Amino acid sequence: MAASETARIEAFSDGVFAIAITLLVLDLKVPKELEPGRSLASALMVQWPAYLAFVTSFLTILVMWVNHHRMFTLIERADDRLLLFNGLLLMGVTLVPFPTSLVAEHFHLAGGPTAAIVFNGTFVYLAVCFNLLWRTAAVGDRLLNPQCDRAAVRGIFESYRWGPFLYGLGLALAFVNVGASLALNLGLAIFFALPQRERKGSAV
Amino acid sequence: MAASETARIEAFSDGVFAIAITLLVLDLKVPKELEPGRSLASALMVQWPAYLAFVTSFLTILVMWVNHHRMFTLIERADDRLLLFNGLLLMGVTLVPFPTSLVAEHFHLAGGPTAAIVFNGTFVYLAVCFNLLWRTAAVGDRLLNPQCDRAAVRGIFESYRWGPFLYGLGLALAFVNVGASLALNLGLAIFFALPQRERKGSAV
Amino acid sequence: MAASETARIEAFSDGVFAIAITLLVLDLKVPKELEPGRSLASALMVQWPAYLAFVTSFLTILVMWVNHHRMFTLIERADDRLLLFNGLLLMGVTLVPFPTSLVAEHFHLAGGPTAAIVFNGTFVYLAVCFNLLWRTAAVGDRLLNPQCDRAAVRGIFESYRWGPFLYGLGLALAFVNVGASLALNLGLAIFFALPQRERKGSAV
Amino acid sequence: MAASETARIEAFSDGVFAIAITLLVLDLKVPKELEPGRSLASALMVQWPAYLAFVTSFLTILVMWVNHHRMFTLIERADDRLLLFNGLLLMGVTLVPFPTSLVAEHFHLAGGPTAAIVFNGTFVYLAVCFNLLWRTAAVGDRLLNPQCDRAAVRGIFESYRWGPFLYGLGLALAFVNVGASLALNLGLAIFFALPQRERKGSAV
Repeated sequence: MAASETARIEAFSDGVFAIAITLLVLDLKVPKELEPGRSLASALMVQWPAYLAFVTSFLTILVMWVNHHRMFTLIERADDRLLLFNGLLLMGVTLVPFPTSLVAEHFHLAGGPTAAIVFNGTFVYLAVCFNLLWRTAAVGDRLLNPQCDRAAVRGIFESYRWGPFLYGLGLALAFVNVGASLALNLGLAIFFALPQRERKGSAV
Repeated sequence: MAASETARIEAFSDGVFAIAITLLVLDLKVPKELEPGRSLASALMVQWPAYLAFVTSFLTILVMWVNHHRMFTLIERADDRLLLFNGLLLMGVTLVPFPTSLVAEHFHLAGGPTAAIVFNGTFVYLAVCFNLLWRTAAVGDRLLNPQCDRAAVRGIFESYRWGPFLYGLGLALAFVNVGASLALNLGLAIFFALPQRERKGSAV
Repeated sequence: MAASETARIEAFSDGVFAIAITLLVLDLKVPKELEPGRSLASALMVQWPAYLAFVTSFLTILVMWVNHHRMFTLIERADDRLLLFNGLLLMGVTLVPFPTSLVAEHFHLAGGPTAAIVFNGTFVYLAVCFNLLWRTAAVGDRLLNPQCDRAAVRGIFESYRWGPFLYGLGLALAFVNVGASLALNLGLAIFFALPQRERKGSAV
Repeated sequence: MAASETARIEAFSDGVFAIAITLLVLDLKVPKELEPGRSLASALMVQWPAYLAFVTSFLTILVMWVNHHRMFTLIERADDRLLLFNGLLLMGVTLVPFPTSLVAEHFHLAGGPTAAIVFNGTFVYLAVCFNLLWRTAAVGDRLLNPQCDRAAVRGIFESYRWGPFLYGLGLALAFVNVGASLALNLGLAIFFALPQRERKGSAV
């Protein structure tokens, strides 16, 4: 928290990631008044889109947190532009519980497509922010540690490029088929959360 | 936050544990409209299952936090698989306020058994995650510090083995007797929170 | 976060203090449906007990956080008993938003005395926990740094002794006069938050 | 977290900033019961003041967090007075979600001017706290590092002076024109969040 110039940005960002991921639970509602003849179990089961949205958002924020750290192990200096794009990224992260709640409550209703569009739109926004943040730091090695691992730098350029496209595909799907769009989001979250290959000692 | 490779995982996990344990208070509801002739005191007292559920969940998260740290004092390296199981564990931790709220609101009602099943089921899930996380790190010393305290390693293998069984017993009890199931949960939380023996200097 | 054995306990406790103090804002309710002929300004002003309860609880948690740190600058080792009493203290800290909300909503109503009793009772509980935690660490220098400042140790013994008595007085007052009880709480919070004397360099 | 005397104050403050900024999302409400013939999209769009208030408060807290750190890179010692003013500042920070919610819910209604006055009043309070905190530390170099960057010290004196005036202007505008007042707040937040000039390596 003292050595590196970017340590405070990381610590603050960590706090925001940890709080946003924990606030997701507030989107799971305890059924209050059960209609006559309805059991609590069935009232809980009918909320399944809320659980899927919770898991999707949890895994997505978790993967974003891992990526944020991988990025900051390579970044050595900070400037106002980096702070700005990191702030815009964090704004998207804090926002996630809202579209998650939208999907949880409106999936079954007429507003389902709108909810899925906002949900996917938030992830497109976040994928764009990740690219802006990374390019601010890495293009021309502006803020990178000059001795840092060049393969890791190329790897991030490579993988971030796909984010806006993949979540954009989910956004397009939301206009056509809400279920397919949310399934794609959940699939992406699981795919990125699964171990890619065993990278001993370079995971965070 | 710089020296050890696992420090960031611990810091992020700490944040999630601290937030989840503090969000439990949101499950305690201020009585709003008192029925005529009912005092605030009696309206508060009738909520006693909410207070027991609060104390049970608070102590359980506290004990899990202590265990998480004991584990990470022995773990030296991180890989994607460790990150995944730690993430699944944290997902369970952030979830705890939801089943706590379920028990608080439905203990007296027809849905009591369902609430107790979800409550215990969450703890079974968490006990399984602890085992998966620990085995990922410790089997064959995969990610452990080779110089670490072997007795501590054996002790964790020993004690974690019982978690899924004990909480599974609570889960089975929930189908038979809700009160007994919750009493077991509270008893386990108190038992594990009490000082086992005086271990000066090795508590965290 | 690595050097001292108690550093993780402090970091986790810091997190809980910071979250509990920030959750207090959720006890301030935005007036939703204004009765005809009532302005938002008057609807906000009628909530003055909520603002006083907010300020009282905020300052009290702030002062407790400062005290917690003063204590831990002297404590060098941790054991299970210290962890237990620290956990019981943190349970009280996370609870504070609940009695604050009780006072905010029931001050004007028949339940005012009950709300004030619960509010003060929480602070009595916290004052007792502070004494138990400190005595666990300091009696016979059990867990203290042997080279620590003896005047500071005596000072904490001296000042903590008064906590349960002063908040107990507030608790007794709550049975007689709700306003006087809350005024005492606010007065204590302000008194302890004000600079006692200028102690350059020893404030935290 | 060990070296500097002010490190714990900064860590606790960081936590409060991070939580307050993340709680803002709770002010965005998921539309529950749609009036017949109304789409979710239009119900979301009609909430635009809530989104503007969210962005304004998010950017304002973000800028305050950056300023808080710039200040504490120059402050070397802590005393009770510094702790008090920092506490009063943090009380304002934790409060921000409340006026944000006020504006979000009452912008369109008769209470719009009242909401805007409370919103701006909170920012005036915060700007005054920043000045009190800074003057406590910096006048006569009371708590500063004697070797610190004098240009940075002068720069902070210079820029903080304008805060109460600018937010005071917003407060005055709130009595006349709610929209203009909120536009000024948003404009100030964006202006301060944008990179002023490229200051490599001195951003935090």
